[in-house]
Amino acid sequence: MQQVKKGKVSNAVIRRLPRYYRTLDAFYRDGIVRISSSALGSSMGITASQIRQDLSCFGEFGQQGYGYNIADLRREIADILGMNHHYSAILLGSGNLGRALLRNFRFAKTGFTLTAAFDADPALIGTSISGFNVRSIETLDEYLKTHSTSVGILTVPKSEAQNMTNHLIAGGVKGIWNFTNVEIDVGDSGVTVESVHFSDSLLALSYLISEKA
Amino acid sequence: MQQVKKGKVSNAVIRRLPRYYRTLDAFYRDGIVRISSSALGSSMGITASQIRQDLSCFGEFGQQGYGYNIADLRREIADILGMNHHYSAILLGSGNLGRALLRNFRFAKTGFTLTAAFDADPALIGTSISGFNVRSIETLDEYLKTHSTSVGILTVPKSEAQNMTNHLIAGGVKGIWNFTNVEIDVGDSGVTVESVHFSDSLLALSYLISEKA
Repeated sequence: MQQVKKGKVSNAVIRRLPRYYRTLDAFYRDGIVRISSSALGSSMGITASQIRQDLSCFGEFGQQGYGYNIADLRREIADILGMNHHYSAILLGSGNLGRALLRNFRFAKTGFTLTAAFDADPALIGTSISGFNVRSIETLDEYLKTHSTSVGILTVPKSEAQNMTNHLIAGGVKGIWNFTNVEIDVGDSGVTVESVHFSDSLLALSYLISEKA
Repeated sequence: MQQVKKGKVSNAVIRRLPRYYRTLDAFYRDGIVRISSSALGSSMGITASQIRQDLSCFGEFGQQGYGYNIADLRREIADILGMNHHYSAILLGSGNLGRALLRNFRFAKTGFTLTAAFDADPALIGTSISGFNVRSIETLDEYLKTHSTSVGILTVPKSEAQNMTNHLIAGGVKGIWNFTNVEIDVGDSGVTVESVHFSDSLLALSYLISEKA
């Protein structure tokens, strides 16, 4: 079905889109061909009408009385998420968290290609992590001049977060995936920041277990 | 003001609570005494009426024409989040991601105390990471019998996620903080699962930069 974006999509919907993709991808890999909106909803803990409402932001999907074709909807949501844009990413900070991402995170499953890893530590520069030769952070500006890069991943210490942000903006990235747990300022650059706040997640868990007690 | 919880709090509100806390904490540390709901909202990118509506789930806060006393509201939101319950946490899996949490995550700032770290790798067992003596995963069941533990943190390989979950449930934890990027099944145990899905976050960023393009 044709995707027609209608107005501004709420943050709540944006946050559910990756979950739709993840759920549909699991069904797809299990060889399931189609699913009713109520079954899809119950597997995600939301209502069928929520699903219909969410998807209606992007066009018409599914067919009354038939449900959703899983392969089709998975592909369409991948398109909506921009997974076919061949975005590239570089990682700044090859410490423990950076290494965890280099070694275990499957960038390709999100449509991204990780193209380089950087660090400031002479003991790390030149070493290989998961096939990535760690580059000196001193070479970042030059790298960005010669390699069009979609996203910079910030796994640097907090104290370096803003400085690295400034270099990434000057180097023309479109987005920053920020793990530093500090707010970074991108001014009027138009660069999009997505932060992974571990503490927000643990506090939500704290709330949820307190609420049950 | 008295906190009166009115019915079920939506997931969207639960997700905003840690951000309220984080924002108020920053103002508090900067020595700011009070703030209007519109200024608080603009610093969080939400409207003043959204804030009033969110907080109304828990009682009455602030005063017409005065705004919010930052120290008070920060403390009340900390209470709502259960930050004063002295929750304990243990970490399962002392690989790169586990080490990143052990070394850099400030558990105390969320009200949690990290009490032990475990791993299955003989090369890690007995070593010290940030003052934590890594214990053998073989001793987990015994540890849980003798140490009441609120939360288990899963930074194990995907293949161990469900097995470790089962041990944590049997050991009486209240919550699981899941970094394995797989869905874990807690059956009817009543255990709360909070997952940090890196891929969901990167896909949201992918959506947001695609939308701007």
